[in-house]
Amino acid sequence: MTDKQQLKADLIQIREKSPLVHNITNYVVMNNTANALLAVGASPVMAHALEEVSDMVNIASALVINMGTLSEKWVNAMLQAGAAAKAKGIPVVFDPVGVGATPYRNQVAAAILQTCKPTIIRGNGSEIMALTNQHSKTKGVDSTASSNAALGAAIQLAKETGAVVVISGEEDFITDGTIVRIVKNGSSLMPKVTGMGCTATAVVGAFAAVNPDRLAAATHAMTVMGVAGELAARKADGPGTLQLHFLDALYNLTPETLDEQAIIE
Amino acid sequence: MTDKQQLKADLIQIREKSPLVHNITNYVVMNNTANALLAVGASPVMAHALEEVSDMVNIASALVINMGTLSEKWVNAMLQAGAAAKAKGIPVVFDPVGVGATPYRNQVAAAILQTCKPTIIRGNGSEIMALTNQHSKTKGVDSTASSNAALGAAIQLAKETGAVVVISGEEDFITDGTIVRIVKNGSSLMPKVTGMGCTATAVVGAFAAVNPDRLAAATHAMTVMGVAGELAARKADGPGTLQLHFLDALYNLTPETLDEQAIIE
Amino acid sequence: MTDKQQLKADLIQIREKSPLVHNITNYVVMNNTANALLAVGASPVMAHALEEVSDMVNIASALVINMGTLSEKWVNAMLQAGAAAKAKGIPVVFDPVGVGATPYRNQVAAAILQTCKPTIIRGNGSEIMALTNQHSKTKGVDSTASSNAALGAAIQLAKETGAVVVISGEEDFITDGTIVRIVKNGSSLMPKVTGMGCTATAVVGAFAAVNPDRLAAATHAMTVMGVAGELAARKADGPGTLQLHFLDALYNLTPETLDEQAIIE
Repeated sequence: MTDKQQLKADLIQIREKSPLVHNITNYVVMNNTANALLAVGASPVMAHALEEVSDMVNIASALVINMGTLSEKWVNAMLQAGAAAKAKGIPVVFDPVGVGATPYRNQVAAAILQTCKPTIIRGNGSEIMALTNQHSKTKGVDSTASSNAALGAAIQLAKETGAVVVISGEEDFITDGTIVRIVKNGSSLMPKVTGMGCTATAVVGAFAAVNPDRLAAATHAMTVMGVAGELAARKADGPGTLQLHFLDALYNLTPETLDEQAIIE
Repeated sequence: MTDKQQLKADLIQIREKSPLVHNITNYVVMNNTANALLAVGASPVMAHALEEVSDMVNIASALVINMGTLSEKWVNAMLQAGAAAKAKGIPVVFDPVGVGATPYRNQVAAAILQTCKPTIIRGNGSEIMALTNQHSKTKGVDSTASSNAALGAAIQLAKETGAVVVISGEEDFITDGTIVRIVKNGSSLMPKVTGMGCTATAVVGAFAAVNPDRLAAATHAMTVMGVAGELAARKADGPGTLQLHFLDALYNLTPETLDEQAIIE
Repeated sequence: MTDKQQLKADLIQIREKSPLVHNITNYVVMNNTANALLAVGASPVMAHALEEVSDMVNIASALVINMGTLSEKWVNAMLQAGAAAKAKGIPVVFDPVGVGATPYRNQVAAAILQTCKPTIIRGNGSEIMALTNQHSKTKGVDSTASSNAALGAAIQLAKETGAVVVISGEEDFITDGTIVRIVKNGSSLMPKVTGMGCTATAVVGAFAAVNPDRLAAATHAMTVMGVAGELAARKADGPGTLQLHFLDALYNLTPETLDEQAIIE
């Protein structure tokens, strides 16, 4: 299959199989990410109790770990779920929200990298640089590094961890340490909606659940995000309306439109 | 009063009395359920600390317990609040989100049934079947059982627990173990919005707060959900816009429109 | 500068500096408040772990503490973060959600007042009265006191605590215990959206981050909220659509429109 055929095939597969994506994510974005997973065709579940995360992983097709709003019990659940997911062999997608902002976030991110051995890591430029101990000017959870500047860090991180690394930004970069794919879709209004990055990570989980080629899965997910964002931005008057039109666009996205609009290098 | 007159009278009462509905619910849907309660005319409060749940129950007119995102402390709060609500004599509405998906959820659901003795239980087909230990193919929090297939389980559960049981789906079934009411309103887009079931449970809480006839209260709440969903679906382009038009429809719903649109058997 | 010039200057400064506003807030409104802060031009971060709140305060320009959904660990984090913020000298904005509803909320509010010494306190009439131990008929988290009736309590509270106190309602009152400013902007649909008050508190945090004159900062924030609410209400069909148009209006608000629409006494 060509790239575009694989892209379309992945979307069709998500809608046919409706894979269960288990999310241990932050309080701010739970609703958005659950809705985005439903809209793209996947089946979301959120569960964080130590008493059940391993059982939930056992019925899931992918695990998404997002460290936006941390606390000790949640971190323990992330580590246990990540280990269970590796043992079961399902993809683990990691979103290191705000890493670099505090020492605690750095410690937690390091523990997750070591214990959960993520299949795919998605962050903004600042976060990916922080994961490789490169100093970038961090401001809370928003990036101050350009995607380009962070690309070197992403390649290094992919080589060190064996994960596919995604930097989202004006252009998205996706790398396995050797190949670099660039997704040029998206809208400048998207970073003005909180949790759009976290939503991307969740959607990566849905694609990873149906496509074992991790570089392709991550690239396709970012393309779907970008195309839906573009379609939504045409109808939106600001970040409030963008959020809804984005969910509608994701839900109504046809493989044909995806094919026509996708700009992948 | 006829059924339709009671239906309208309940909505009017909610708006006049604005009953306080205390929710111990999941992180994903808190915002949606609070907004739906406000839109229908009730007054929502969310509180989960052991230090205050009994006090909050004491000023509330109904308690809604939803086990979407469990953890030990929250479960303790649910059990304490449920016991306080029974002692005070206000209705307890229970949403067994994802029961059947993990052993922990099954244990928690059993503890809630035993300690809180819910007045009304609302779930999807899979959840209601899981509560009666009937094996249905469960997938996380989404139902894979048809409402019809689950009706037998609902009747059994109602008889065993003394609760009115609601199965929501394409058609909603409401039973006290003897009588079965069917609500035929709704839109196929509603399950594509996360937490629409949890919202239904919260709205059931508002109706139970003003109408002591539990079978009628649950039926009326599901009718209001379905009619508002239909009105919203006419304006929506997908699950994103549905969510807002749904809140608008709930807020603007007149007793007359409700009367005209309701299809109850 | 005149009042209106300062008002415009504050908005421009928020957009230029994009101050980091650290929120320890409730589960119901996190998404809304993060989106509102982004829309107005600030940079939101949510973090509540004891392990990191002090570090997060150290990179933040304002701290917002909101006690909507309390629990022991979160209260400890609020107190620690508040103390760190005072030590660092950044503004602490406090939202005493639902104080008066339970003894636990009263205790927590008293502890926050004592330890965090808030720079600005924003609540509805009932909450401000409860903070001064005046008995008002409280109903959960919604106000039953008129803003006018609570103004005396606000002036007393400002004198006792040294904080600027904001009562939001049909008209917003802002006082430092001596001067009283009144903001007459707003829409009656705003209280029908959950967390609109919490959003106001977060936006106060953004203005306090750029303007050391606390009375002016709070007044300007409430004006921006009110004007954006009015603009949104013109396009909205109910509380669902209001929420989005509000974010759009906040994002698109120009200093000129703000100047034209603001009604401050």
